[in-house]
Amino acid sequence: MPISEFDIIARYFAAHPGRREDVVLGIGDDAALLQVPPGVDLVLAVDTLVSGVHFPTGTPPQDIGYKALAVNLSDLAAMGAVPAWFSLALTLPEADEDWLARFAGGLFELADAHGLALIGGDTTRGPLTVSVQVAGFVPRGSALRRAGARPGDVVCVTGTVGDAALGLQVAQGKIDRGNGDNAFLCNRLNRPTPRVAAGLALRKRAHAGIDISDGVAADLQHLLEAGGVGARLELDALPLSDAFTRYLADAPERDRALALVLSGGDDYELCVCLAPEAYESLPALDVPLTRVGTIEAAPGLRCLDSAGRELAVVPGGYRHFAT
Amino acid sequence: MPISEFDIIARYFAAHPGRREDVVLGIGDDAALLQVPPGVDLVLAVDTLVSGVHFPTGTPPQDIGYKALAVNLSDLAAMGAVPAWFSLALTLPEADEDWLARFAGGLFELADAHGLALIGGDTTRGPLTVSVQVAGFVPRGSALRRAGARPGDVVCVTGTVGDAALGLQVAQGKIDRGNGDNAFLCNRLNRPTPRVAAGLALRKRAHAGIDISDGVAADLQHLLEAGGVGARLELDALPLSDAFTRYLADAPERDRALALVLSGGDDYELCVCLAPEAYESLPALDVPLTRVGTIEAAPGLRCLDSAGRELAVVPGGYRHFAT
Repeated sequence: MPISEFDIIARYFAAHPGRREDVVLGIGDDAALLQVPPGVDLVLAVDTLVSGVHFPTGTPPQDIGYKALAVNLSDLAAMGAVPAWFSLALTLPEADEDWLARFAGGLFELADAHGLALIGGDTTRGPLTVSVQVAGFVPRGSALRRAGARPGDVVCVTGTVGDAALGLQVAQGKIDRGNGDNAFLCNRLNRPTPRVAAGLALRKRAHAGIDISDGVAADLQHLLEAGGVGARLELDALPLSDAFTRYLADAPERDRALALVLSGGDDYELCVCLAPEAYESLPALDVPLTRVGTIEAAPGLRCLDSAGRELAVVPGGYRHFAT
Repeated sequence: MPISEFDIIARYFAAHPGRREDVVLGIGDDAALLQVPPGVDLVLAVDTLVSGVHFPTGTPPQDIGYKALAVNLSDLAAMGAVPAWFSLALTLPEADEDWLARFAGGLFELADAHGLALIGGDTTRGPLTVSVQVAGFVPRGSALRRAGARPGDVVCVTGTVGDAALGLQVAQGKIDRGNGDNAFLCNRLNRPTPRVAAGLALRKRAHAGIDISDGVAADLQHLLEAGGVGARLELDALPLSDAFTRYLADAPERDRALALVLSGGDDYELCVCLAPEAYESLPALDVPLTRVGTIEAAPGLRCLDSAGRELAVVPGGYRHFAT
């Protein structure tokens, strides 16, 4: 007999151990009941992954589960929030129990690492779509926002950028970087690390922040528009992984390769703006933070090459419906 | 030039007027910031509508927008919660501005009627899927749950049942009940009325409650299982609309027609269990409440016909993946 939606929920999602004191009532009623601590702002985000759009159709289910939660945690990280709970709206073409077990495995691997409770959701039949809603807290009034960058601020990014965009080319079979780099790049694409701890540390010190989901150029521009400021970005300062650096050395068209760094999506690193003195006195984070530019009063993003020449065209980030 | 996801959000969703004091930061950052009043439990629900599964492909976009929010508000109503905010994860095959304007019109018509704020979401490209997450409040510890029914309790349902299942047959062209009844039945399918006010009133008086989304038989069984009790349900007592009653009089197979009442989905009425004395002293609600059965100690659902005979088979509710 085929498995029903109720059995799916019971077997793969509701049965997962791990309780939180603030979950009064989780999966299994019409809605979840939750207790929000006093003195906080509740932080809510939602992000959807569509098969064939946000991940290649052959992506392992455990990575889909992991990534669906990771991209949402990245939004909380960008606000400097402590994650607490999530819900899952899962649309599946069929009830494949092996697929479900692996999907749930990847999802809970990340959830457990952050002490998150799954508090509800909806399981429906249709084209594979995973929508996660995540909730967290910040002390009242203290969230890190996109608006707030000031001229003179240092622009920084966590980790390295461009890896996921290159990983997509590997996953699509367009390039082959050898086993080691292929695995690293695909992992960066399929299992982004939400910078939750870095976001918490930066919340108290940065003026503004955003997570990089559409490429550092596009997301930095969102931050600049929100703050009514501009920035200069030093292309040569953008932090690259060893795998990306090796790719760049081999790339026949260096400009196209660099475009991946600027406008390739799915990095899920943080981009933050800090006063120079705050930048200098930062405590150690659990991820490298690299200075890549400076906030300026004049609106717009100016990308400069190693000779200090402004690039004529800044490729935009990935946009749905724009093409 | 085609419209981008950012323009869609700005034009059709973020621009909608209507603010709430408790929305610190709404659409436009990495996440929303919200203030939860002291002394409440936060109530969260999520429900997804998939094109061709939860609504026929020809459904008017304004009805899709309306229904996507209505089914979520119905979950809050079943907990007796006051709705506050919602977010929208919208997956669209194409950016059709006429479609978007009508979809947003239906969505905000219902949101405004309940004083709800749209606080965020995600717009992606893919097969048409609408996932709404809704949040509300109940005084701490006072939510109406599925568990809690006691032997001797009166089982009641709001409004009428079976209309939406019949409306689906109209929408699919399987039956034609004449213009007036066709319109009524399709409206019940496409624009269910979430019983929010009734839920608030019943929360203080009922022992248990659930919303009827999969058919009164299936959802009442969920309530019975949660409470470890059983019930007898008088089929003749189930409240029917005039349109349904006319259909029943004409139906060649009365049993199949009645099956729609028991197991047709999409009613979005409430089913609650109350002590007889609480039922007798109920204040007037904004929707009729009909006594349809009695909670009994013996587990299981017993459906009785007008002669008091127990029906051999209780059709189950609509289940994804079960067929």
